Amino acid sequence: MNAPLPAQLLPKLEPRPVPPAMLDALKERFGARCSTALAVREQHGRDESPFDVPPPEVVVYCESTDEVAAVVKLADQYAVPVIPYGAGSSLEGHLLAVQGGVSIDVNRMNKLVALHAEDLTVTVQAGVTRSQLNNEIRHTGLFFPIDPGADASIGGMSATRASGTNAVRYGTMRENVLGLTVVTANGEVVHTGTRAKKSSAGYDLTRLMVGSEGTLGVMTEITLRLYPQPEAISAAVCSFPSIAAAVNTTMQIIQMGVPIARCELLDTNAVRAVNRHDKLSLREGAMLLMEFHGTEASVAEQIATVEQIAGEQGGEAFEWASTPEERTRLWTARHHAYFAGLQMKPGCRTVTTDTCVPISRLADCLLDTVAEVDASGLAYYIVGHVGDGNFHVAYLVDPAIPTERETAEQLNLQLVQRALSLDGTCTGEHGIGLHKMGFLLDEAGAGAVEMMRTIKHALDPKNIMNPGKIFSA
Amino acid sequence: MNAPLPAQLLPKLEPRPVPPAMLDALKERFGARCSTALAVREQHGRDESPFDVPPPEVVVYCESTDEVAAVVKLADQYAVPVIPYGAGSSLEGHLLAVQGGVSIDVNRMNKLVALHAEDLTVTVQAGVTRSQLNNEIRHTGLFFPIDPGADASIGGMSATRASGTNAVRYGTMRENVLGLTVVTANGEVVHTGTRAKKSSAGYDLTRLMVGSEGTLGVMTEITLRLYPQPEAISAAVCSFPSIAAAVNTTMQIIQMGVPIARCELLDTNAVRAVNRHDKLSLREGAMLLMEFHGTEASVAEQIATVEQIAGEQGGEAFEWASTPEERTRLWTARHHAYFAGLQMKPGCRTVTTDTCVPISRLADCLLDTVAEVDASGLAYYIVGHVGDGNFHVAYLVDPAIPTERETAEQLNLQLVQRALSLDGTCTGEHGIGLHKMGFLLDEAGAGAVEMMRTIKHALDPKNIMNPGKIFSA
Repeated sequence: MNAPLPAQLLPKLEPRPVPPAMLDALKERFGARCSTALAVREQHGRDESPFDVPPPEVVVYCESTDEVAAVVKLADQYAVPVIPYGAGSSLEGHLLAVQGGVSIDVNRMNKLVALHAEDLTVTVQAGVTRSQLNNEIRHTGLFFPIDPGADASIGGMSATRASGTNAVRYGTMRENVLGLTVVTANGEVVHTGTRAKKSSAGYDLTRLMVGSEGTLGVMTEITLRLYPQPEAISAAVCSFPSIAAAVNTTMQIIQMGVPIARCELLDTNAVRAVNRHDKLSLREGAMLLMEFHGTEASVAEQIATVEQIAGEQGGEAFEWASTPEERTRLWTARHHAYFAGLQMKPGCRTVTTDTCVPISRLADCLLDTVAEVDASGLAYYIVGHVGDGNFHVAYLVDPAIPTERETAEQLNLQLVQRALSLDGTCTGEHGIGLHKMGFLLDEAGAGAVEMMRTIKHALDPKNIMNPGKIFSA
Repeated sequence: MNAPLPAQLLPKLEPRPVPPAMLDALKERFGARCSTALAVREQHGRDESPFDVPPPEVVVYCESTDEVAAVVKLADQYAVPVIPYGAGSSLEGHLLAVQGGVSIDVNRMNKLVALHAEDLTVTVQAGVTRSQLNNEIRHTGLFFPIDPGADASIGGMSATRASGTNAVRYGTMRENVLGLTVVTANGEVVHTGTRAKKSSAGYDLTRLMVGSEGTLGVMTEITLRLYPQPEAISAAVCSFPSIAAAVNTTMQIIQMGVPIARCELLDTNAVRAVNRHDKLSLREGAMLLMEFHGTEASVAEQIATVEQIAGEQGGEAFEWASTPEERTRLWTARHHAYFAGLQMKPGCRTVTTDTCVPISRLADCLLDTVAEVDASGLAYYIVGHVGDGNFHVAYLVDPAIPTERETAEQLNLQLVQRALSLDGTCTGEHGIGLHKMGFLLDEAGAGAVEMMRTIKHALDPKNIMNPGKIFSA
């Protein structure tokens, strides 16, 4: 395994200064929307990853594709890195300016460009967040299902190939991005895809960009698939006597082909954390949080099947959240798990794992991991999009105690090794970023990573697009 | 529009001879499995496209990934083109040896490598055909839904990003290929993807290869998603008073989110052709052929909704095919449409269109096209995966009458222009091949095509992987 050891985890810093002439050009074009204030730079120089690195040299607030192109053209001219910035919710250090450069803030690019309800498509600017999108299209009776928890930007979600709670039924950003407007490394504007549901027209540049973490271009507009709001939605909570029982239930649900919309695991620690944080009174044991979408009859059928499976595994009676308010409360609590977890150990930081395995391997992967982390004595909780075979162990690490971080990284390494040996992946949805470059090499092999590097060099010969991420240059 | 005119449609021939030393090396390694017999070469030098070009210089029957790699290594050494050959069912000239070279026949690579029913995945060699796959996995209760009509190889279906009748519910090869084994242009073997359902691990090389038409590497093994055979399947035929009524019904079915599994249009000409070819007695008018998958209750609900929509559009009462035998007879007839159509005009060849548009634009696109082709006087029929906005006009062209071919190409051009103006694509599932290079430029724009070319040059610097397809070098 080539996975990084804790001592090597600090990102390699290779600052490439922004020359005064470039700074002048940016200031001339963007005025007050170009900032070198330390507070602004620091805000754009961190995310939810456990890394601390110097911030970018300058932040530019762009309001259009043309403005992004103008910044990238200057960056190309002066061979300076550019890093797109959306909601700042990355967990893997994607936003960190390990080689300095310019942060391109797309938050003001927050408009719906074209809503085609009759085609179930929408085109949005990259800074639109998922909750904003769903608020703005609610009147159409449609919704965008991809929900990574954080209120991430659609640009960021595309860049990391995000997924989250609804992916088990609706797929990930991979399946739900139809087309893109991209600013390439030389500042050209390219459109990929169409609004047609499928196409065989040449290389799938859309899918190449989705998940490229800003290293091949800046996505400025994204065309998405939408879905009719289901006629019926029911959410339920089910407590299990053990985490194994919850996982076995999940595996059977998926193997039987039940079209469940959400199938989320919370371990006892996670339930305790959200109870405390959101003032809930969920039974403190391993739990599945499930949601069913469809017609009334279809939802009833799904529930009957799942209740039977859960009952056979010793699951308690389902507790129902039938009104939209109750459902929102439940899913908000789930989405707060990250912050709720942080509060379990004041002052801690989180090292989060993201393995995903074929569904039949989920029990093997998860239960051995639980035994391992229990034995380590480190504080943790587990949440998981288990319907997809994807779960997150969040190790709660005291920054003042270096051995805790080392233990967490060692446990993460062991978990990734386990997932790869089970035909899985080191990252189901968070991306590689800075943290998993060694894991990517283990997973994909040197040949595939070299193929990625060849593509990167060809499309970004000066290595200015979010350099230092995914793989070493 | 940069679309080719009929006179320019003949592929540019730039033969790159196989040197005697390479031929000797191939013969030494492959013995009788390396053939230069004219009949063998000619068999590998044509497909279902309307082009005639000289055949490849040599055909090699490979039996393993290592053997494919050995051929490609020699091709790399001598800078000679290689063209993968599966079932030969391409419609766009993908297999034609426009620059000479070696045809790599993968039909003997026809084994299931690993069936993981418990994970709903299977890994197959590239020469396995879709019907073979479904026969071999039937005992598991699972099936692979992608069905392009022809009994294509899984390798070819991956290479063209194929879809077909079930895509409206199950997606295309884009959504259903999890991972690949690929022989790259320098003869290295690379693995992409894992068996996990989702991943954010670096560039999506799997999706880059799917649809690359053999121009970036030879896919030798493919890992696919499988689906549980539905508890209930019902197929129905519904005749409409006009093609407009059939199309309007389709649009409403999709816009309401009915999870229909197949929604196929046949125009009156197509119905007449399959009636004659398959000795059926379908009512000779515009028709939808539909199939519903799900639980008994879900299928009943879908049918009730669709019957109501169709009734409002003047559709006749549904005729049901409930037994597997009746369903097979119906879908076999649909799959025979291509050959049935050819028999409508003895000695003719087919020029087939493949546009796909957003669902709300389907009526605009299809009805104007019908008016145009009716006015031309050319014989034709239409079949379509209309649930996806994708349909095929098959112009029946007498090779002895050049003006017919010219008319067909002119009509195709007009149709593509219409589809692009409606935010659609020139090819929903057949690929670019030789025929649509000009259309690709119109659709994707020079910037995106240049991005494709840059990737091609980087990954295949000697331009040996199926050269001359998708875009000019």
